[in-house]
Amino acid sequence: MKIVIDAFGGDNSPNAQITGGLNFLAQNNDFSLIFTGDEALIKKELDKYKYDASRVEIVHAPEVISNEESPTAAIKTKKESSMVKAFDIVKNDPDAVAMLSSGSTGAILTGAVLKIGRIEGVLRPTLAPILPTKLKKGVCLVDGGANVDCRPEYLVQFALMGVCYMRAMSEIENPRVGLVSVGTEDKKGNELSKAAFAALKELPINFAGNMEARDALTGEYDLLVADGFAGNVLLKTVEGTAMMVMSRLKAAIMGSTSAKFGSLFMKKAFKQLKRDMDYNAYGGAPFLGIEKIVVKAHGASNTAAIEAALVQIKKMAKGDVVGNIKAEMQKLQELQAANAATADNA
Amino acid sequence: MKIVIDAFGGDNSPNAQITGGLNFLAQNNDFSLIFTGDEALIKKELDKYKYDASRVEIVHAPEVISNEESPTAAIKTKKESSMVKAFDIVKNDPDAVAMLSSGSTGAILTGAVLKIGRIEGVLRPTLAPILPTKLKKGVCLVDGGANVDCRPEYLVQFALMGVCYMRAMSEIENPRVGLVSVGTEDKKGNELSKAAFAALKELPINFAGNMEARDALTGEYDLLVADGFAGNVLLKTVEGTAMMVMSRLKAAIMGSTSAKFGSLFMKKAFKQLKRDMDYNAYGGAPFLGIEKIVVKAHGASNTAAIEAALVQIKKMAKGDVVGNIKAEMQKLQELQAANAATADNA
Repeated sequence: MKIVIDAFGGDNSPNAQITGGLNFLAQNNDFSLIFTGDEALIKKELDKYKYDASRVEIVHAPEVISNEESPTAAIKTKKESSMVKAFDIVKNDPDAVAMLSSGSTGAILTGAVLKIGRIEGVLRPTLAPILPTKLKKGVCLVDGGANVDCRPEYLVQFALMGVCYMRAMSEIENPRVGLVSVGTEDKKGNELSKAAFAALKELPINFAGNMEARDALTGEYDLLVADGFAGNVLLKTVEGTAMMVMSRLKAAIMGSTSAKFGSLFMKKAFKQLKRDMDYNAYGGAPFLGIEKIVVKAHGASNTAAIEAALVQIKKMAKGDVVGNIKAEMQKLQELQAANAATADNA
Repeated sequence: MKIVIDAFGGDNSPNAQITGGLNFLAQNNDFSLIFTGDEALIKKELDKYKYDASRVEIVHAPEVISNEESPTAAIKTKKESSMVKAFDIVKNDPDAVAMLSSGSTGAILTGAVLKIGRIEGVLRPTLAPILPTKLKKGVCLVDGGANVDCRPEYLVQFALMGVCYMRAMSEIENPRVGLVSVGTEDKKGNELSKAAFAALKELPINFAGNMEARDALTGEYDLLVADGFAGNVLLKTVEGTAMMVMSRLKAAIMGSTSAKFGSLFMKKAFKQLKRDMDYNAYGGAPFLGIEKIVVKAHGASNTAAIEAALVQIKKMAKGDVVGNIKAEMQKLQELQAANAATADNA
């Protein structure tokens, strides 16, 4: 199986992409990698390391898409960019199962839809980041921000796609699904979430009903479902609050001589905490609902983050997430057709 | 000036209400308090302390509204409840400037609207909690969850009312206002936030444009504006993430003998951190847009939280938040009338 890596567009490109890629390659003999981007720069970087050259390919792409560009314009006009080249390969090579990029989220989503295409029946692909919890497991959030204006049908599909994803990632057969709302009671929510609640209740998934964002990170849920606006607010509030608490902790320690002394014995524990909180450990966030695996890694991804994203892609490929989403969308269409027929006959 | 305290409906009622109230009373000679609730229980609690009895009144109300009841039904039928009695007094007594309750948020909002009434021109009252930031100052969030389905006009009013509130609370003349969105660029957002952005830009406030929830607690904003669904998600995610980080920190310390030893020197610093993060320190959250001051304290409020809420009410009363909101609503209506006239003449 081949994974295509957009070697540019991240803060540590192409170094992190190449070192993370080669680390993964050394551990996974059944995978090979294709790097897209400036050939000379990639070669220069690759030459620093020992690796199995028979499983590494470079496809030259002199341009880079930046975060500031309009996603649609960039995907349509920058045909020689590392990202568009990566999409072209994944689209055309049947052995290429996945595309990984640290570039602009909007451009990756646009490229995924325009170049690779949506799975039949999928109304909107969803961004599915994984967040740390109190327990030693992550919780997936759909939609993390790909769709800021949603309809209830979208949320239903986000849930089904998220379940397929978490089944592959966590090896939990029936991921516990919570609908993000303003209270846990069935009737709580806004117009959108209430309509989604009614539809989610009818699905053959482990639906735990409404949940409050206060419980998002307790570990009692495997999948959180929200519209992309509220989902993005949740995602970014987690990041902002974690930074605020760490900064307050640091200030509290620095404000006390005794605490400063005590902290000398805690370096390992603080490092552990930082590791626990590190989104890099979870790799990237996939766009679910696309005909192939597309994963967006954080712009600031380092070697470890790229390697984690590749392990994640491997799990998604081995767990056939794309195939399972196809099957779920097929079943959903059949269910809806059956319901429509029943309604017609009534 | 009189403040009416619903002495029941909280987890620590009536003890916290009474001790917090008496602490406040001892420091503020120009205020008197009216407690509503079971007279015998209140008296029994009051008798434990020394206080200026000429400034304390009890109004008997044998019933309590619970969190499980339908807000509208409870307010309409439980006329002998501590909450409804409190609203009745604030409505009818010109000296009663404010009502404080730890009871059901929904019932307080319903009671505030039905019993006291909205300020003329206010479309929807808003819940305005204050959150801790990295710096030693809080940030106010409107709407914290009173209005889960919003229109752009509501957000405009939330911003104006929040500015009046933060002017009184923080003594900042021009509170910096951020619109919660999915990116900082002007064009980012959903349909609702984009329309609100265009309207907020036209207001004579210190509008800093779109902000990301990641920066909610950096201290660079004084007021965050969002619809009540996204706002509530933000509010509760802050709480959930802080709990998660603290729990992870504890686990990291407990997992290391050296860190456990080090933590012995950090007790004061950890206590400081806990204090910094404590929502009790900020008192309660007012409903802005009501003809009198109405503050909802957390259900779990202790003595310190009730006292802080009373200090907050004092600031709101001295800063004439209600009067200023009235003036802002008046100006807004004049502005809208002028704009309509211009449009008609065009």
